Amino acid sequence: MKSYKDLSPSLRTIMTPGPVEVDPRVLRAMSYPILGQFDPEFTELMNETMEMLRDVFQTSNQWAYPIDGTSRSGIEAVLVSVIEPGDKVLVPIYGRFGNLLVEISERCGAEVVLLEKEWGTVFDPQEIIAAIHREKPDIVAIVHGETSTGCVQPLEGIGAACREVDALLVVDAVATIGGVSVQTDAWQLDAVIGGTQKCLSVPSGMAPITYNERVEAKVLRRKTIERGLRENGPAATDAVAAGKPVASNYFDLGQLQDYWSPKRLNHHTESTSMLYALREGLRLVLQEGLEERFDRHKRHEAALVAGLKAMGLTLYGNPTCKLPVVTCIQIPEGIDGESVRAMLLNSFGIEIASSFGPLKGQIWRIGTMGFSCNQKNVLHVLGALEAVLLWHDAAITSGKALQAALSVYAPKEEELPC
Amino acid sequence: MKSYKDLSPSLRTIMTPGPVEVDPRVLRAMSYPILGQFDPEFTELMNETMEMLRDVFQTSNQWAYPIDGTSRSGIEAVLVSVIEPGDKVLVPIYGRFGNLLVEISERCGAEVVLLEKEWGTVFDPQEIIAAIHREKPDIVAIVHGETSTGCVQPLEGIGAACREVDALLVVDAVATIGGVSVQTDAWQLDAVIGGTQKCLSVPSGMAPITYNERVEAKVLRRKTIERGLRENGPAATDAVAAGKPVASNYFDLGQLQDYWSPKRLNHHTESTSMLYALREGLRLVLQEGLEERFDRHKRHEAALVAGLKAMGLTLYGNPTCKLPVVTCIQIPEGIDGESVRAMLLNSFGIEIASSFGPLKGQIWRIGTMGFSCNQKNVLHVLGALEAVLLWHDAAITSGKALQAALSVYAPKEEELPC
Repeated sequence: MKSYKDLSPSLRTIMTPGPVEVDPRVLRAMSYPILGQFDPEFTELMNETMEMLRDVFQTSNQWAYPIDGTSRSGIEAVLVSVIEPGDKVLVPIYGRFGNLLVEISERCGAEVVLLEKEWGTVFDPQEIIAAIHREKPDIVAIVHGETSTGCVQPLEGIGAACREVDALLVVDAVATIGGVSVQTDAWQLDAVIGGTQKCLSVPSGMAPITYNERVEAKVLRRKTIERGLRENGPAATDAVAAGKPVASNYFDLGQLQDYWSPKRLNHHTESTSMLYALREGLRLVLQEGLEERFDRHKRHEAALVAGLKAMGLTLYGNPTCKLPVVTCIQIPEGIDGESVRAMLLNSFGIEIASSFGPLKGQIWRIGTMGFSCNQKNVLHVLGALEAVLLWHDAAITSGKALQAALSVYAPKEEELPC
Repeated sequence: MKSYKDLSPSLRTIMTPGPVEVDPRVLRAMSYPILGQFDPEFTELMNETMEMLRDVFQTSNQWAYPIDGTSRSGIEAVLVSVIEPGDKVLVPIYGRFGNLLVEISERCGAEVVLLEKEWGTVFDPQEIIAAIHREKPDIVAIVHGETSTGCVQPLEGIGAACREVDALLVVDAVATIGGVSVQTDAWQLDAVIGGTQKCLSVPSGMAPITYNERVEAKVLRRKTIERGLRENGPAATDAVAAGKPVASNYFDLGQLQDYWSPKRLNHHTESTSMLYALREGLRLVLQEGLEERFDRHKRHEAALVAGLKAMGLTLYGNPTCKLPVVTCIQIPEGIDGESVRAMLLNSFGIEIASSFGPLKGQIWRIGTMGFSCNQKNVLHVLGALEAVLLWHDAAITSGKALQAALSVYAPKEEELPC
C-alpha cells in the first residue's frame, strides 16, 4: 500500500480573481465538529445564514440560501429552475462568463438570443433595454462582474425594463458579491447568484443565491414533491404541479426552498462544514460593514493600479467600466506570460492568473478580493512582479511601482493629525 | 446591525445513517490555508485523491474523482451524463433511495421501468437478471445499501447480465463506501457513486464517483467543449460531438474529466477545503485497511444489535439482508418515537434518526458508520436509549443491553493471552 504524506500545503499569496485566501477565522470555523442536519442547533445556523445573506445581497427577499456546489452550481440551479424548455432567454455577453450563461441556458432547452459586446468593455444599459423591448424575452441573464475581462456591467434600469415585458432578470454576481455593491432590491434583480471563493473569502464549494416572489411564482408552477417523500405514495400525482418539471432534482429550487423553510423537507444533506464557513465569512463581511468593505476594495485597487502604471505596464480594458476587484494587464511584447507567472509562484509564492479564450496569452489578471485584498499583498505583488519582469528583460521602469502604491496608502494631508 | 454569536456547536454523539462524526484529523485538514486550483501543489493533491479513490472503490478505472456537491449530486452527474432522453432505465426499488434514482432518471428524460420489492427486504439477484433479459434496458440503476430500510442488495451477477444486453450498471454506494465492501471491478459495476458523510466520515459536500470505459464511451459521444473555452470561438461546432448533449453543464462528466485530467481544462473551481477533507478521509481509510475497516463495522454492529435485542426491542427488516452500518428498530407500541429522539438529543447529546415515507413514525434508525462506529458510542447509545425508554414507560428489559454489548466486545477465550 502506497503511503501518502501528511497534508502540508504551502502558504501562498493568492492574487487571482478567485479562489483567494481565506480568513483564518473562516478556516477555524471549518475545523469545528459537525452537527446533524436536522439538529435544532444546526437549523438555527442555517436560518442565521439566510438572514446574513439577505443583508449581503441587500434584499428583503424571503429566499436567500446557498446551493451546495461551486459558484456555477448556483447559476445552473437558478437557470434550470426558471427556464422552461422553449423559453426565450436574452444573454448580453461581454466576456467568458456570459458564454457560460448561454451554454447553461441552451442546455436547459432555451431559445437563446445573444447580444454581444467587444471584450474589455460593457453595454450601455440602454442597449440592453432596447433589446428587451425588441425581443420580449422570458428571461434576461447577465454577468455583473466579468472576471475574464475585468469589467463591471451597470445594471440600473434593466430590471424595470424586464418588468415591462414580464421577463425575469437573473444576475451572475459571483465575482462582485461582498466586494462591489450588488443592490438586489434597488435594481429590481429577480435572482442573483454569488460566489464564496472571491470577495467573501470562503473556500469554493457553495453558491449563495437569492430570488424574489416573481421567480418563486415560476418555481412553484413547476414544483414536484420528491417521489420518495410523497405522503400518498410514490405514484401520487397530486404532488406534481402544472408546469413542465425542472430537469434537475439537485437544482430544483422548489424542493430546495422546502428544505430551507421551517418544513425542512428532506432533500440533500446540507454541507455542514461549508455552511459553518459561509456563516463565518458572512459574519465577517457584516462586521466590517458593506460600504467599508467596498471602499477597502477600491483603495487597494487604486494602489495596485498606480503601481502597475508607474512600472510602465498597460492595463487591459476600458477604464470607465473597470471592475474594482480584478485588474487586467497587457502582457508586454516579447514576454512569456506563463514564465512570469511560474516564477512569481515558485520564487515568491504569489499566484496571479492568466486568461481564457481570445485573451489567452494576452493578459494577466490580478485579483484584489476579500481577505487577499490588503496592503501587504498589494505591495508584495508589485515588488515581486517588478523583479520578475526585470529578470525577464522586460522594458519596464524600476523603482517606481512601490513608491506609487505607497503614495496611495500614505495618509492625505487632511487626514494627518495636527 | 444584528450581531451574530461566535460559532460554538455542541459536541454530539451522532449515531444516524449520516452525516456522522468527522475524524478530528479530517477537521484539521479543512482548517489549512488554501491553494489556488491550478497551483501544481493542488493539482498533485487532486491526483492523489483520484489514486486513493481507486483503492477505496476497488477499481483500476482511470476515472475516479469527486463531484463538488452532496451525495445526490454524484448520482445526478452520472445519470444525466449516461441517460440520453428516451433511454430505457431499469430501477429495482426496495426503499426511498431507489425512488430517488427513479425521480432523477425521469427528470433526465428516461423511460423508467420499475421493479419493486417490499421495503425491509431486497431482490434475489436472479429476479433482477431476469428483468434485464426481459426489458433489455440501456441502463440499470440500483442502490447498494438502503439507509431508509437498513438493507443491502447483493450485486454479484447483475453486472454480467448487463453486459449481455449492452446495458450500463449504475450503483448508488453512498451508504456503503468505506464501511461495506464495494467491489467495482469484480462485480462489473460500470459507474459507482459514494458518499462522504457516512462511512468515510468526511463532512457532506462532495460525492466521489468512479466509472469505466463503457461509461466513458457514452460520455464522449455526448461531449461538448464549453462555449467560452472553444479555441475556434464560441460558435465553433467542431467542439460538439454527435450524441444528444448532456442537459447539465455542472454535471457533464465529459467536461469534468477534462478538468480532472492533465489537460486541466477549466470548469468549476474545485472546492479546496472539501478536497483536503476528502483526501485526508481516504488516507485514513487506507491506513486502517479496507478489510480491517469492514470488520470493525461488523463488530460494532454485532454489539449494538446484541444490546438492542437484550433490551427486548425488535429489529426491522429481513436479517439475511441487513446492512451492517444501519440498524432499524421498530418503535414499541404506544411510544412516541420523536419524543424519544428529542430526549436522546437534549439530555444525552445523542442523535439517532427517524425514517421516511411509509416508515415514518414506525422505526428508528441507528447508524454505525465511520468515525462514529466505535465502542464508546455504541455503549453510550445503548445506555441512553434504555434510560430514555424507561423514562417513557416502555416495556423493555433493563440492565441487560450493556451487558450483552460488553459480551460481544469481551475478548474471546482463544484471543486471551496464556
